[in-house]
Amino acid sequence: MKTLITSAVAAATLFTGTMTFAQDGFSAEMKARQGQFRIMAINLGIIGDMAQGKTEYDAAAAQSAADTLVAVSMIQQGPMWPVGSDDMSIEGTRAQTTIWDQNDDFVAKWTDFGTAAVAIQAAASGGLEGLGPVMGQIGGTCKACHDTHRAPAN
Amino acid sequence: MKTLITSAVAAATLFTGTMTFAQDGFSAEMKARQGQFRIMAINLGIIGDMAQGKTEYDAAAAQSAADTLVAVSMIQQGPMWPVGSDDMSIEGTRAQTTIWDQNDDFVAKWTDFGTAAVAIQAAASGGLEGLGPVMGQIGGTCKACHDTHRAPAN
Repeated sequence: MKTLITSAVAAATLFTGTMTFAQDGFSAEMKARQGQFRIMAINLGIIGDMAQGKTEYDAAAAQSAADTLVAVSMIQQGPMWPVGSDDMSIEGTRAQTTIWDQNDDFVAKWTDFGTAAVAIQAAASGGLEGLGPVMGQIGGTCKACHDTHRAPAN
Repeated sequence: MKTLITSAVAAATLFTGTMTFAQDGFSAEMKARQGQFRIMAINLGIIGDMAQGKTEYDAAAAQSAADTLVAVSMIQQGPMWPVGSDDMSIEGTRAQTTIWDQNDDFVAKWTDFGTAAVAIQAAASGGLEGLGPVMGQIGGTCKACHDTHRAPAN
């Protein structure tokens, strides 16, 4: 567990990527980061549906989804967020300039997601009753980042 | 290391996901899996550019990229590959029906990627001369899967 948290922090502190695919308007980076959030949504959905009684609780499926959330939290973010790939500069993104202007806050919020993912990982196969609190925790980390760093949908 | 390999295998054996977002033509799953491959490409590019002398060797950057490849290999694949999301059934994908018809082979090839990612993780910060062989290994796993399970680009 300690290793996972350490890795998540290490990944988060690398939010200074400068690798660019500028020739295609950061298409690769946008697809990468947006895909990452889809992976998170799909796996949160699996656990969330169980927590809400929409699907039957399945300990193995919950664990796999939780393990995946932790895996995503270990992906280094820097190379996916090159300077100039914000919503004021290019189309197709809701990434606000605060991600770069207040990068410490963005990194802290991503680290909070990783911490919450580890909490879900520890609780996932322990029964339905344990899912609610940890889902609330991770949902809070999603919302905190979206409220600050993601532009509203058009 | 053993834990990582075990996790990769566990994730790979769950290639039987049935969760669907059929109402939008599997848009979420396609964005998720295509984003995943972009993350892999970006991070392989970071290490590959060093291996080819296009960028200066940076042990920390190579390690972060390698750690990310391992993280991606731990993402469960099942929920991103629902039945009916192949290139004969929907637009916007090059995923061939063999992924489902020869799923054991697809799973084995994904597992090979995870094994190669762990090899890169072990070598990444040990110096430039160690990168070539492991890059060759992981590149082979990419090609093996593409040759069998990905349709040619139009």
